[in-house]
Amino acid sequence: MSWQPNRQSATTLQQQIIQWITAQVERGDWVAGTKLPTQRQLALQFDVNRSTVQQALEELKAIGLLEARVGSGIYVTHNSWHTLIQQTQPNWQTYIETSLHKPNYHTIQLINDYEQRDEMIRLGTGELAPSLLPIKEIEASLQELSFQPKALGYSSPQGNEQLRIAICNYVKKRGIDAEPQHVCIVSGALQALQLIAVGLLEQGSIVFQESTSYLNSIHPFQSVGMQMMSVQRDKQLAQTLTQRKRQAVFYAIPTLHNPTGDVWTAQEKRTLYEACQAARIPIIEDDVYHELLFEAPVPPIKAMDSSGQVLYIGSVSKTLSPGLRIGWLIGPTTVIERLADIKMQTDYGSSAISQEIVLHWLQSGKYDQHLSDLRQQLQQRADFVEQILQEKFQEVASWQTPKGGFYIWLKFHQPIVDKEFFMRLIQRQVLINPGYIYNPQDHHHIRLSYAYASYEELWEGLEILYECAVKSMDFY
Amino acid sequence: MSWQPNRQSATTLQQQIIQWITAQVERGDWVAGTKLPTQRQLALQFDVNRSTVQQALEELKAIGLLEARVGSGIYVTHNSWHTLIQQTQPNWQTYIETSLHKPNYHTIQLINDYEQRDEMIRLGTGELAPSLLPIKEIEASLQELSFQPKALGYSSPQGNEQLRIAICNYVKKRGIDAEPQHVCIVSGALQALQLIAVGLLEQGSIVFQESTSYLNSIHPFQSVGMQMMSVQRDKQLAQTLTQRKRQAVFYAIPTLHNPTGDVWTAQEKRTLYEACQAARIPIIEDDVYHELLFEAPVPPIKAMDSSGQVLYIGSVSKTLSPGLRIGWLIGPTTVIERLADIKMQTDYGSSAISQEIVLHWLQSGKYDQHLSDLRQQLQQRADFVEQILQEKFQEVASWQTPKGGFYIWLKFHQPIVDKEFFMRLIQRQVLINPGYIYNPQDHHHIRLSYAYASYEELWEGLEILYECAVKSMDFY
Repeated sequence: MSWQPNRQSATTLQQQIIQWITAQVERGDWVAGTKLPTQRQLALQFDVNRSTVQQALEELKAIGLLEARVGSGIYVTHNSWHTLIQQTQPNWQTYIETSLHKPNYHTIQLINDYEQRDEMIRLGTGELAPSLLPIKEIEASLQELSFQPKALGYSSPQGNEQLRIAICNYVKKRGIDAEPQHVCIVSGALQALQLIAVGLLEQGSIVFQESTSYLNSIHPFQSVGMQMMSVQRDKQLAQTLTQRKRQAVFYAIPTLHNPTGDVWTAQEKRTLYEACQAARIPIIEDDVYHELLFEAPVPPIKAMDSSGQVLYIGSVSKTLSPGLRIGWLIGPTTVIERLADIKMQTDYGSSAISQEIVLHWLQSGKYDQHLSDLRQQLQQRADFVEQILQEKFQEVASWQTPKGGFYIWLKFHQPIVDKEFFMRLIQRQVLINPGYIYNPQDHHHIRLSYAYASYEELWEGLEILYECAVKSMDFY
Repeated sequence: MSWQPNRQSATTLQQQIIQWITAQVERGDWVAGTKLPTQRQLALQFDVNRSTVQQALEELKAIGLLEARVGSGIYVTHNSWHTLIQQTQPNWQTYIETSLHKPNYHTIQLINDYEQRDEMIRLGTGELAPSLLPIKEIEASLQELSFQPKALGYSSPQGNEQLRIAICNYVKKRGIDAEPQHVCIVSGALQALQLIAVGLLEQGSIVFQESTSYLNSIHPFQSVGMQMMSVQRDKQLAQTLTQRKRQAVFYAIPTLHNPTGDVWTAQEKRTLYEACQAARIPIIEDDVYHELLFEAPVPPIKAMDSSGQVLYIGSVSKTLSPGLRIGWLIGPTTVIERLADIKMQTDYGSSAISQEIVLHWLQSGKYDQHLSDLRQQLQQRADFVEQILQEKFQEVASWQTPKGGFYIWLKFHQPIVDKEFFMRLIQRQVLINPGYIYNPQDHHHIRLSYAYASYEELWEGLEILYECAVKSMDFY
């Protein structure tokens, strides 16, 4: 939806909008039952006054193309002069509504959308700023690539073997003992979760996790019928896990937890490992932020795994470039072969060129160099943001000094973080990741990212965030 | 599984094999209940005599690590001296067996496996020969790429906008009128099917298709609970479609059908379109071979789609490089937005670099140049293979002269094409795609590909195929 009316045209803006919406319906693009964006959103999109949008919509309602449903919004009608089209078209809306996969939460759809707009200040984004990506170096490395004749064909089920060898050498440094047959290349960590969901779990399986978790903001497991269950990592944990009635798995982000930034101690890792071992529950260890610890990292759970208990996930998305779409999954051969078989059925493997690039960066030592530089820059950004917080936010919020990664888990003293707060910030062109997408009960936190926005934007965005927060707190 | 015993070692081959298998089990890699490959397969893998494998397995059975199950094969035992490991390990085998997604058919797993071996002659592969891929040109084009700062970040839900614009211009030449909001970039055509399966169909929906179809060799729909239903495209079709009791979709490959090579006439396309329109059933038009027609193509069904009925799938996998993993899905905005939302939940978008490469090839005109050259080379290969067929196979089989693409749908006069036939050819290092993976009832056909093997291999492979076929026919 990037169309805007032409201000140089002889036709009025309102008339252009009417014509455009009519065209969307006529060509079968907006199907019967489609809900229109809000007037506010349309006004933003068309870059016109809200009253112009309102008048256009009124006229379209008058001719029966649109209809208002009380308390719900404006829809494309089912029985209108364009009946002819609708009767021959599949009832797409029904197809969509009854299908298997859940849509993204609305807040997340909005985040995905607004992240595409250059004017937004992105205070929540889980992504490196363009200026932190080694774009020139990646371009340069493209010139050093030369492909074996077979490199650009379909990949083997587990992915480029040279890359798998390089990954084994790479994770050895953090204490993981793996061989190429234990590795499956995936198109990012999210795909690894997807493969585990459909390839290892029966319907109704339990996915244990902490109450606040990245996994609540996506739903690879829920979409295929798994139950999410939040647990405390306390003395009862082993018992809770053992008492489960169904197949289960434990999802953990022990290093630089997303969104809280927590780093587990070696003892905490050991405790979870032993509890899961006693209950014979696999652990999914999501370790995509490992490289970004400001201080020396503690070995991951996978490093203490002597019995093939842990499925370990890594990625270059948080470090080198999300655009490469390359991650890896490490586990017992039997499991990896199974998941690779499903990956072949899903997308016939990951981009061969992306795999070659990652291989080149790992083998040449460029990756390690880049990481050490990146950590420094992230540390500087973290310091910068924390200084602003200390100067401004002490009265309204609390936080921990980040130990690495992208995020500060900022806790407002009052539960002000709701959808309205989120939307109010969007109006002021500031995009946040509210805590409630990671824990539906949480209205205190936001995931503040110092990794994406420029220093100037961080300063300005935090200023606006502060103003909105103070305004909201006045209600308490 | 690429390990082989070391012939220079002082340890006997048999002892090395015993140690290696024991290590697989001890490290929790081959979990309890894992079925071992057959003795023949192990002997092939280890490059030793079958008797060496047999003796090693006997010894491992004697010490209780392995067990034979009558008529089924050899398995890692559940109750053995390695009980200690097994009791703390999750019961992976149960996880795998009860999970949602079906494994690939065994024949297809074998094909995926053997395709990795350089010594095999691949007579069935649906992939361009390395020599037909423009590898040097792709390498050269990498040097011409320069990325916008944001190009290497996470992609927008529908993919690179410039690429979507270029695709719209590209498909316009075949009569499809699309705008960027109608396009979603996918990681190959298979992912498009996957997204449709989970994003548009309810459980138990019907997927209509022809009785012989590529779709029978994969199962994106079956794995999520859809019913496949074969139909004839005859006079009863409209009635059959209308009488369905459930949600449905029609999957069609009207241009260079995989595996039969059929090309529908304009009238056949029109008939299907109208039948589906009357029944209000969406059509999935899989058109990934469109570019490879030797003669001028007839416009696709999508070109006659005035009501948003057709979901159109294209790809560069069959033309430029499967390793790029780039395809596209074109449909009504409402549907495309829905599928893009699910794509974001699946893998956060396709490789940005692959997208940039395809954009560059489309925009620069390199793609069209390459295609015209490619068609010529495929035509030459088709002629070459057909000449061998005419000289040798007239007595045992029949076929149609291919109109483009990769395949000849070779029909043996007798139903000799079964799993044993497939395995016998593997032993002679020839890999075929037997017809029964596209239609379980079919034991007459193989999908003969002239696109992959070298001219020499084609000659030699067809010689071996002929010998095996004659041998099998002697039984009739």
